[in-house]
Amino acid sequence: MLSIDLNCDCGESYGAFQIGDDEGILPFVSSANIACGGHAGDPIVMRHTVRRCRELGVAVGAHPSYPDLHGFGRRVLPMSPAEIEAWVLAQIGALAAIARAEGVELRHVKPHGALYNVAARDHVVATAVARAVAAFSHELALVGLADSALIDAGREMGLPVLAEAFADRAYEADGRLRDRRYPDALIIDPTACLKQTLSIVRDGVVIAIDGTPVPLQADTICVHGDTPGAAARAAALRHGLEAAGITVRTPR
Amino acid sequence: MLSIDLNCDCGESYGAFQIGDDEGILPFVSSANIACGGHAGDPIVMRHTVRRCRELGVAVGAHPSYPDLHGFGRRVLPMSPAEIEAWVLAQIGALAAIARAEGVELRHVKPHGALYNVAARDHVVATAVARAVAAFSHELALVGLADSALIDAGREMGLPVLAEAFADRAYEADGRLRDRRYPDALIIDPTACLKQTLSIVRDGVVIAIDGTPVPLQADTICVHGDTPGAAARAAALRHGLEAAGITVRTPR
Amino acid sequence: MLSIDLNCDCGESYGAFQIGDDEGILPFVSSANIACGGHAGDPIVMRHTVRRCRELGVAVGAHPSYPDLHGFGRRVLPMSPAEIEAWVLAQIGALAAIARAEGVELRHVKPHGALYNVAARDHVVATAVARAVAAFSHELALVGLADSALIDAGREMGLPVLAEAFADRAYEADGRLRDRRYPDALIIDPTACLKQTLSIVRDGVVIAIDGTPVPLQADTICVHGDTPGAAARAAALRHGLEAAGITVRTPR
Amino acid sequence: MLSIDLNCDCGESYGAFQIGDDEGILPFVSSANIACGGHAGDPIVMRHTVRRCRELGVAVGAHPSYPDLHGFGRRVLPMSPAEIEAWVLAQIGALAAIARAEGVELRHVKPHGALYNVAARDHVVATAVARAVAAFSHELALVGLADSALIDAGREMGLPVLAEAFADRAYEADGRLRDRRYPDALIIDPTACLKQTLSIVRDGVVIAIDGTPVPLQADTICVHGDTPGAAARAAALRHGLEAAGITVRTPR
Repeated sequence: MLSIDLNCDCGESYGAFQIGDDEGILPFVSSANIACGGHAGDPIVMRHTVRRCRELGVAVGAHPSYPDLHGFGRRVLPMSPAEIEAWVLAQIGALAAIARAEGVELRHVKPHGALYNVAARDHVVATAVARAVAAFSHELALVGLADSALIDAGREMGLPVLAEAFADRAYEADGRLRDRRYPDALIIDPTACLKQTLSIVRDGVVIAIDGTPVPLQADTICVHGDTPGAAARAAALRHGLEAAGITVRTPR
Repeated sequence: MLSIDLNCDCGESYGAFQIGDDEGILPFVSSANIACGGHAGDPIVMRHTVRRCRELGVAVGAHPSYPDLHGFGRRVLPMSPAEIEAWVLAQIGALAAIARAEGVELRHVKPHGALYNVAARDHVVATAVARAVAAFSHELALVGLADSALIDAGREMGLPVLAEAFADRAYEADGRLRDRRYPDALIIDPTACLKQTLSIVRDGVVIAIDGTPVPLQADTICVHGDTPGAAARAAALRHGLEAAGITVRTPR
Repeated sequence: MLSIDLNCDCGESYGAFQIGDDEGILPFVSSANIACGGHAGDPIVMRHTVRRCRELGVAVGAHPSYPDLHGFGRRVLPMSPAEIEAWVLAQIGALAAIARAEGVELRHVKPHGALYNVAARDHVVATAVARAVAAFSHELALVGLADSALIDAGREMGLPVLAEAFADRAYEADGRLRDRRYPDALIIDPTACLKQTLSIVRDGVVIAIDGTPVPLQADTICVHGDTPGAAARAAALRHGLEAAGITVRTPR
Repeated sequence: MLSIDLNCDCGESYGAFQIGDDEGILPFVSSANIACGGHAGDPIVMRHTVRRCRELGVAVGAHPSYPDLHGFGRRVLPMSPAEIEAWVLAQIGALAAIARAEGVELRHVKPHGALYNVAARDHVVATAVARAVAAFSHELALVGLADSALIDAGREMGLPVLAEAFADRAYEADGRLRDRRYPDALIIDPTACLKQTLSIVRDGVVIAIDGTPVPLQADTICVHGDTPGAAARAAALRHGLEAAGITVRTPR
């Protein structure tokens, strides 16, 4: 029986500033990546989000970032590997402490934004992130782009790794994500999202923007929550997967 | 054989901004309260300070604060008990994760500045702090002013508590610390610091500013590191205690 | 011929964090209070907002706050009058410089949130705010709650003052704003907003929640932009005023 | 009669965090570059520093930076020219408002740290800085490294420019500053600082680290305040210049 993990980024509000539609998305995913103070998230937002995940039976993970509230973690900051490692550790620890107070244990770590992207291609940065995760716990799964330097670094560090693919992002023929500058980089149509996800889960293949079938092994599928119609898309994806006989649940 | 814990606040730098003389003080204390991002401290400073404590055999604790870098944690922020609890949890967790990466486990938590002062007299705030500590671990000792609401709250929460007295602060006849607005609130002379500490440790008594002997049971003695001559005072205190046959070490 | 100023708070986003519906509201007001980095607003948001105001012919003012991004300026921070004065000055100056680069001169200053409320009742804080405004320019109008300490302080400082009333807030029989804790504190119905505004502008009277007519002289009417339906309410208010023969424009 | 401007960076404290020895240096310089909230400086520090400059007859300028308190402005942030321009404008405006409240007008702008270095070699960034200065006032002098892109950009924008040289930094034979990674990059000896400054002021020449004489026209000489012995060095420099018949004063 086939199964797949659906994950979303959440807890990305900060004080009175709200981002994302956590209430709309969380009911449909199996794993949540919760911002932990780097690009967004404050202790009250973290605690509220952990609680909702517990109520909904969603697995909780940390979503650390370059420390950059103003840039929302979308900028590459000039930080040394030692700095990245220490800041990621502090963010994981902050969320883990709050989760523990809610009786919840962290299951995974997925870096956010620019850190995710740099760690996908730069082995030194990837290793800094993986070192932070391993120093915290060897039980934490490291989530990274499928076939990326981050997945490699996680394996080298002896961590469980989860290769990620995207339901709502177009792929290039060489397996990379299509650049967001192109209008067709985002897949808005729920049916298209479902179709791409089914292809990845059932066939281990994604159809690139030019029609090329590209092999793609994924352990978890990301659903973005900060685009219009995100909740409806997540619902359609979950229901479509279940209708196709695929269970949505965390790996292992 | 008598023993006493000497503690100091440290790790209170932030990026290029340096505060305190950690290198001068740490060799003479048995416990260190490390800033964890609330009023000061960043992950690199935290890691460096934890490492120094490990090298010196100094027990490591968290020094959480109202989140107020600009005010250095010296201002009372209007925060609800739930907010205080969540922010303290996040700070403890951040430091604990970094300490774990250094193979060090936190031993205690001592709130900083305005939070320390409010928690000493306000049972609601004290309980918020104690709840955070207990949610993180019932093994963590809660450090608070002797005979304070914080010590009461820690006991109610089932936490080990450590009553704190000061080597370098004058006391009033009613047992309170003399207000820092008075020039004689700080005890600068190393011999006077030692004398006051010996009186507390050996006799359970502090001599108030007006000469009144005041009963005072303390488990740990704070040595301030941010006043001129702090390192020399700490050295004199440690050597004087040892010369008097009193071991400087963490409780239990 | 009757006229009235309509004002709204705006430019309250920060980086990727968006608050308010500036595009929806600005076309209907005559004055804009632009956040200037205290509770929200960054230089890019400020510049964009100033530009929109210039394009729409809306007068630009500063909306300074306690420096408290996380609390969105809704918390009273423990700051001395000298600190308040200096932080308000810096915020006015930051916005004024950006406005000047857009060929726009500031016309007024209206404090935000907790600072507005404290300055309405506390003459010391009101004077600190007024001193900052006067130090920057005696041409800047100070906007404050009608019949408040802030209006008094502005007059004492020789500043032009603008007494503010609210289109969408209920009043008590003693002239104070109804506490937001009550569900009927906010007036949601556009027709009710218009009716209240017409009563203030034409008759100098507001009808309190219990039916009491309360004398109220106002130079400017605030329209909130952060409540659902705000843009529609602002549009209805503007059109209703104009249909009643009242010109919407800045004073003098 | 020869004259030269001596400048120093100052006002680089933040809340309880103190950096630099402003009291020690300011009496010996003719121009002060005051941090304005980007890498350091808060409104209280700014005001205090402006006041001291006024008392000492020192000309006041702004010292804007990449907005990066944690990195103290020493890191190159990934910001667009439009972002740099807006943030520099906001910083100049904040300081100018505070200076105005003290009856002081800004005379110059000198970017700080990484922004100074990038603007010295990158014409796009230099132009962004110069645009901000010009938008604020064409009377403000732009201070930049002698023979740099920033000086060029200032000229192109029609600003008065001041070419800067360093009393306490060694130069390479190609005219660049010797990299700080080398132990001999800083000139510690007060006599050597004076000698280098006299050579620049009198002969328009600096002797490079390898003995090569390098032509160098400078309008202002920077004295660093954050190195040990800085105050003594500044005093020696000022007295030595005056003893050599050179007046220390602002240009024009």
